[in-house]
Amino acid sequence: MAKEKKLVEAITSMDTDFAQWYTDVVKKAELIDYTSVKGCMAIKPAGYALWENIQRELDRRFKETGVENVYMPMFIPESLLQKEKDHVEGFAPEVAWVTQGGLNPLQERLCVRPTSETLFCDFYANDIQSYRDLPKLYNQWCSVVRWEKETRPFLRSREFLWQEGHTAHATAEEAEERTLQMLNLYADFVEEFLAIPVIRGQKTEKEKFSGAEATYTIEALMHDGKALQSGTSHNFGDGFARAFNVQYTDKDNQLQYVHQTSWGVSTRIIGGLIMVHGDDSGLVLPPKVAPVQAMVIPIQQRKEGVLAQAQRMKEALAEAGLRVKLDDTDKSPGWKFAEQEMRGIPIRVELGPKDIEAGTCVIVRRDNGEKITVPIAEAANRAAELMESIQEDMFARAKAHLDSHITDVKSYPAFKDAIENKPGFLRAMWCGEEACELKIKEDTTATSRCMPFEQEQISDVCVCCGKPARKLVYWGKAY
Amino acid sequence: MAKEKKLVEAITSMDTDFAQWYTDVVKKAELIDYTSVKGCMAIKPAGYALWENIQRELDRRFKETGVENVYMPMFIPESLLQKEKDHVEGFAPEVAWVTQGGLNPLQERLCVRPTSETLFCDFYANDIQSYRDLPKLYNQWCSVVRWEKETRPFLRSREFLWQEGHTAHATAEEAEERTLQMLNLYADFVEEFLAIPVIRGQKTEKEKFSGAEATYTIEALMHDGKALQSGTSHNFGDGFARAFNVQYTDKDNQLQYVHQTSWGVSTRIIGGLIMVHGDDSGLVLPPKVAPVQAMVIPIQQRKEGVLAQAQRMKEALAEAGLRVKLDDTDKSPGWKFAEQEMRGIPIRVELGPKDIEAGTCVIVRRDNGEKITVPIAEAANRAAELMESIQEDMFARAKAHLDSHITDVKSYPAFKDAIENKPGFLRAMWCGEEACELKIKEDTTATSRCMPFEQEQISDVCVCCGKPARKLVYWGKAY
Repeated sequence: MAKEKKLVEAITSMDTDFAQWYTDVVKKAELIDYTSVKGCMAIKPAGYALWENIQRELDRRFKETGVENVYMPMFIPESLLQKEKDHVEGFAPEVAWVTQGGLNPLQERLCVRPTSETLFCDFYANDIQSYRDLPKLYNQWCSVVRWEKETRPFLRSREFLWQEGHTAHATAEEAEERTLQMLNLYADFVEEFLAIPVIRGQKTEKEKFSGAEATYTIEALMHDGKALQSGTSHNFGDGFARAFNVQYTDKDNQLQYVHQTSWGVSTRIIGGLIMVHGDDSGLVLPPKVAPVQAMVIPIQQRKEGVLAQAQRMKEALAEAGLRVKLDDTDKSPGWKFAEQEMRGIPIRVELGPKDIEAGTCVIVRRDNGEKITVPIAEAANRAAELMESIQEDMFARAKAHLDSHITDVKSYPAFKDAIENKPGFLRAMWCGEEACELKIKEDTTATSRCMPFEQEQISDVCVCCGKPARKLVYWGKAY
Repeated sequence: MAKEKKLVEAITSMDTDFAQWYTDVVKKAELIDYTSVKGCMAIKPAGYALWENIQRELDRRFKETGVENVYMPMFIPESLLQKEKDHVEGFAPEVAWVTQGGLNPLQERLCVRPTSETLFCDFYANDIQSYRDLPKLYNQWCSVVRWEKETRPFLRSREFLWQEGHTAHATAEEAEERTLQMLNLYADFVEEFLAIPVIRGQKTEKEKFSGAEATYTIEALMHDGKALQSGTSHNFGDGFARAFNVQYTDKDNQLQYVHQTSWGVSTRIIGGLIMVHGDDSGLVLPPKVAPVQAMVIPIQQRKEGVLAQAQRMKEALAEAGLRVKLDDTDKSPGWKFAEQEMRGIPIRVELGPKDIEAGTCVIVRRDNGEKITVPIAEAANRAAELMESIQEDMFARAKAHLDSHITDVKSYPAFKDAIENKPGFLRAMWCGEEACELKIKEDTTATSRCMPFEQEQISDVCVCCGKPARKLVYWGKAY
């Protein structure tokens, strides 16, 4: 009964308070719980199952491109972190420090990895000798720690789960190619598997990763019009290689520095999944990532034959390839519907005595509420088809939302007006100077999200300073 | 060439120096590398692929019993660690402490989890309300840290990967049943998948887990006659529940404490895999866990048709369900053989111009060196059959080794003689007093490994003190 009560309390409406709606959903869909460790969350089975599905699919796509998994230590000695100047400046202020091991103080502090470039470089310095050892295409699945002041489940927590790929190549061209390959792999994965459309582009100098030559990003738009950086891929050139002395002997027996990349996607993307697809009844999951794709819910289940028929329905759906569960608890059908909706399960199959008499059942889509009456014998095939159309429709809906929330602006007053009154991305020209990014951020809180791969010249001058325009930029308020 | 050179240097023979042989194998089979972080290792692709296979199979077996995966924070506040008295005494001396987060000292120290009982209890205290919430069958895959002084790859490192299951039950009986279920699941997994026979039993009071009522263990015997604890399962009774106030309302609306278990297997088991099956040519992997099961090695590969035939062979083996690779590098066949042997790949398929002319190929088993000439058209089926027989033969060989290294002893002089001169397990009766365990350890360095489930009375008196015997115990020197 305790559990049911939680559901009765309706969640906050998205339009009333989006932040509160988000918090309500992650709690009531049982994705996470807060812990006694400030800023760290417990990921519950429903939340972790999402991460497992994301992991499995990403890992498969990585391996298809030749990536191998490894595992590096979770600690970084302070002297190692300090080897690359920009990198340490970017990360040192937000790391957790281990100062004591067992009963003794450490001679050198260790930070808990916020990211592992330094460890991979230290490793590659030994592991790479000759051009025959290249490329190295390594990835690891692990947790990292960044001592954030303000935290929110999935979006920003002191510890989070992610994967970090780290590659080493013989040439600058190969490194750039791999950087873009992984960015596109992320974009395809997020669009095809999570049904979230993204903008692909490059970060400005100001927004790039500490120590990178170039950072590429995919940016998604949440329901409230704010952006979420959903995956990044960095080209390091030979900067880290020089700092860590990662060299190889080329075919002419000359020593050369390697060129490196890194790329990562984290549990943050689950926050995006919630904020792109969710509604006032809770989570809405695209079928491909949904741990449970169909819930069979018997009506008047004590009547003879109902439970048996529901069980057969579950088996038929499983045979058709669906991840399916049967809710035969003693809760009322209404409760069961509310739970299935809160958890974002793509369809439910309702089956009661009248349906059975008529030889039919009712399939209800979570994404649009549509009810379909189908013959029991056809339900499994129909459900399997629905998995595909729901996935497609959810992407199309999110794409329409994204497209209708992009505003082109050509003057600074128009920029300031739009950022307040038209939630979403603003497209505006930029002179290339950090000063304008800083001014825009101070005036509006918006940041440059990316310089999209598909560049256009929508005006001749920078939207902020009026100097000649160099780049089209997507701007927005962001998580 | 650098890589090939490493292989030329023959590894130390097992009989000359087993410890050095072990270190040589983990390095030269490229399972791990040392890092700048003292006591922590980098797990390389060949090593991590073993862990991925172990994970996949264990995870599947867990889920079949209803277990769900979750993720708890990696940090434990000092006050939380201290809540269960025995537990904190056992672990506090060997944890790493985080004392600073970002630029500020922490108000309360956090330890990096050495194990997560305290976090799960803290979580369950909120998550469990009613008997309807039970049982909770949670597991997590993560890394843990114990500040060991002496470290060895896989066997004892400051950070290691593992899974830790934590369950909560309504009754003591259910908890005991789950504890034994998981111990048996581990034993079956280790025997069936890793081809390592184990002794199943219970730890003595002295050797049990800090805070447990009972600890069950599987103990394996390494090639050198030393024991390796390979998996443990703990019944906590309601001790942690009382310390953390984890209560539920039963059907009669009464508050009750839950009964808990925990159980874990770690990357340590990879050390066991090496030390049970390895030989003087390197690693020997059972087919089920081997990341690569067959290596196709062309002979005189520059001769026309050889590489094409080798490629077809690879495809035929892959179609037969094997994980197969083709070594078409420009190394000599001898090098390729040595590499395949060092890496423990279960079979290689040799294919040269003469073989092709005769329509045959040569399959060489890694486990016993046997060479089999088979028609090319039959190679794939034959290789698939070999996967099964190699797996069985490796288990049988390890079982014979175990059985022939168990010595029954009935007097203390016999005990001391056997522990020096007959490597392996000693079976001897014990009075049940910790004093005898301490004396035996001081006199011989042997410890009580377990009280086996299959008890016999091989003598009436304790092997150490001569008082009445209460339990048959397996004793041994251990890793």
